[in-house]
Amino acid sequence: MPNLLVNGERLKDTIEAFADFGRTDQNGVTRLSLSEEDVKVRGYFRACCEQLGMTVQMDDLGTMVATLAGEEPGPPVVIGSHLDTVKKGGRFDGVLGVIAGLEIVRTLVEQGIKPRLPVTVMNFTNEEGARFEPSMMASGVLAGKFDKAAMLNKQDAAGITFGEALASSGYAGEAAHRITEAAAYLELHIEQGPVLEKEQLSIGLVDCVVGMVCYEIEVTGESDHAGTTPMDMRKDALFAATDLITELRVRLGALDSGLVYTMGRMNVYPSIHTVIPNRVVFTVEARHKDMEVVREVEAILQSLPAGLEGCGVQRSKLWGRDTVWFDPGVCALVEQAAHTLGYSSKIMASGAGHDAQFVAGFLPSAMVFVPSVNGKSHCEEELTSYEDCEKGVNVLLTAVLALLSSEVGSPLSST
Amino acid sequence: MPNLLVNGERLKDTIEAFADFGRTDQNGVTRLSLSEEDVKVRGYFRACCEQLGMTVQMDDLGTMVATLAGEEPGPPVVIGSHLDTVKKGGRFDGVLGVIAGLEIVRTLVEQGIKPRLPVTVMNFTNEEGARFEPSMMASGVLAGKFDKAAMLNKQDAAGITFGEALASSGYAGEAAHRITEAAAYLELHIEQGPVLEKEQLSIGLVDCVVGMVCYEIEVTGESDHAGTTPMDMRKDALFAATDLITELRVRLGALDSGLVYTMGRMNVYPSIHTVIPNRVVFTVEARHKDMEVVREVEAILQSLPAGLEGCGVQRSKLWGRDTVWFDPGVCALVEQAAHTLGYSSKIMASGAGHDAQFVAGFLPSAMVFVPSVNGKSHCEEELTSYEDCEKGVNVLLTAVLALLSSEVGSPLSST
Repeated sequence: MPNLLVNGERLKDTIEAFADFGRTDQNGVTRLSLSEEDVKVRGYFRACCEQLGMTVQMDDLGTMVATLAGEEPGPPVVIGSHLDTVKKGGRFDGVLGVIAGLEIVRTLVEQGIKPRLPVTVMNFTNEEGARFEPSMMASGVLAGKFDKAAMLNKQDAAGITFGEALASSGYAGEAAHRITEAAAYLELHIEQGPVLEKEQLSIGLVDCVVGMVCYEIEVTGESDHAGTTPMDMRKDALFAATDLITELRVRLGALDSGLVYTMGRMNVYPSIHTVIPNRVVFTVEARHKDMEVVREVEAILQSLPAGLEGCGVQRSKLWGRDTVWFDPGVCALVEQAAHTLGYSSKIMASGAGHDAQFVAGFLPSAMVFVPSVNGKSHCEEELTSYEDCEKGVNVLLTAVLALLSSEVGSPLSST
Repeated sequence: MPNLLVNGERLKDTIEAFADFGRTDQNGVTRLSLSEEDVKVRGYFRACCEQLGMTVQMDDLGTMVATLAGEEPGPPVVIGSHLDTVKKGGRFDGVLGVIAGLEIVRTLVEQGIKPRLPVTVMNFTNEEGARFEPSMMASGVLAGKFDKAAMLNKQDAAGITFGEALASSGYAGEAAHRITEAAAYLELHIEQGPVLEKEQLSIGLVDCVVGMVCYEIEVTGESDHAGTTPMDMRKDALFAATDLITELRVRLGALDSGLVYTMGRMNVYPSIHTVIPNRVVFTVEARHKDMEVVREVEAILQSLPAGLEGCGVQRSKLWGRDTVWFDPGVCALVEQAAHTLGYSSKIMASGAGHDAQFVAGFLPSAMVFVPSVNGKSHCEEELTSYEDCEKGVNVLLTAVLALLSSEVGSPLSST
């Protein structure tokens, strides 16, 4: 019997239809959480679901839970991601994972398949954190990682709280509609990195979201006159910072080839060409799936000298998170689906954060990646071929069908 | 016969009286050019001069020319500097050189000395360039280095032009009052560096203002995701910039111990901790009195690679200026004065720019430095002891008396 596949043409049209909500003139998308565009795309998503006979409910964070009833009451098979984007983001980040669920339900309904278990498609509110920090807000509350009251008070740049935006959106729902159990949670997402494309693979089988640590380093010198202060009487914070970065690159580079480390934010003060810099502040962020390596990074950062070249050096930990491992059973199911379909794939870690990393705390979860052209995301050039999108959705469909054909009761657990 | 000296107590009181115009709560001074505070201090200076029987005229850039008549019509002995300050500047930068002239005239008048030649005290408009760029605006126009019409159109942050501010100040004068000849031009200034203090000397005999060059270096990489981009697939503009700075420090550091070089302005883009920097722009500014060394700096900057670690490297020259050598005759006169008074001194270069460097183009000129505590200037902590201020003014007085006692006609020339 041939594998059941989704409708690639319809999938492409759906991706473009969703991109119309907030599409920019450079073919990207700006759809900040609970913005006018987000409210409109939510309405469109809701209508698409209701047209398929799904029930659409909202939880108390505004996360949308659209369910196609199954022959049994549950637990459901859940497919989810997010419809919000960063400012001038792309047409694929987030939305692809929601559309995947919609396309899977469309395929089931079209084929007259009444699923054994309910099939639920979710749109998590405010994954990007681009309007209201932090990112993955709704899934974080769901997982008990964030305090709901604190989140409702988070303000956007205009001073509007998340709670106010949620109330005026019309998408505030009830805590009773929170998703708390599932046969499995599946999230399809673009890779947002260059690995799959470079290795000419179609599918990334994501077994974890890497652990990370982020420090801020502050170097303090003296802002003397650039023309009148001899070199040996200077306390140049930029020179000391430059030497620190060079030392860190050598020491972090020696740890493990899989480690990524970035000095992404850096500010030099007072930043006047005739004044010796008296203060440099920069971040050091490092990620690896092996927490032992992350701890070695921390040890190196903690061992930085308190002073260098006459300047003071202070370090403070901004945050860190442990590696989140996905459910081995769900991962195996997804891997089997890719093999069944004959798609090239590899097991890989997610270097970026996703709703799935919080969801994995209470539902058996896994993620699937599809290639990002040039590794780009969070920009208007963000691109994944429709063919790769289709393959990714087919992997999820095949996994869903396997879950639906399993014995009664959840075949998988997150333990 | 004992040396004629100025009145140290009166000098101290005068310094504090002038500092009342724009004094900050941290005992600094904010007196931007042609601001309300500057107009008030000009009025006070004018009144002080007129009380001594001096004639006060303004040239077409608002520079004040206060003259005590001599037995002969001229050319005058000129003492000058500026009354404007940077924002939150100090009580000594600029104003000390004007007060020096005032105290010298006060001493002459008090002693009943009718000078052979006129003695002129000048306040150059907008030396700091803190409100209207460029700095040394009025002396630059006087020297033919800046175009007057262009200067009149320079705007401050509020959009007010220099011409408008000059007109409303009441200090717009006539081109006929420009200073065009002098027996000598003398400028007393704080060192703005740590050398005199460190070497425990009271007087800097300034023989030149060093030449300099300023370049802007732009490094262009790619702003990929910090979590998903393996290290060997990155084009990290900050890493490339760091390596360039390290290389420049090694190569510039090998040139000459008297060379000073500063990467003062630096901006990293987009400066987000989760994003690999795709652009770093920094300045490299270097100063040395030997233009051959400055040319070697330029050769090094010009030889930077066009690319590094996958990033592009572009360099552009922002500006440069040649070393300005002061008049040997006036320098010798000042040196003799310091020796006569028994003050410790050394011949040194000025690393900072001053009105005298432009004036030196058409008047025989020299500068005298007094120590800056901790080398600080352009800040509220700027400090020179009253004792050192007094010594500096005494050096100028002794030089002025020597000029006045010389034979008829200018004993010195700038050739």
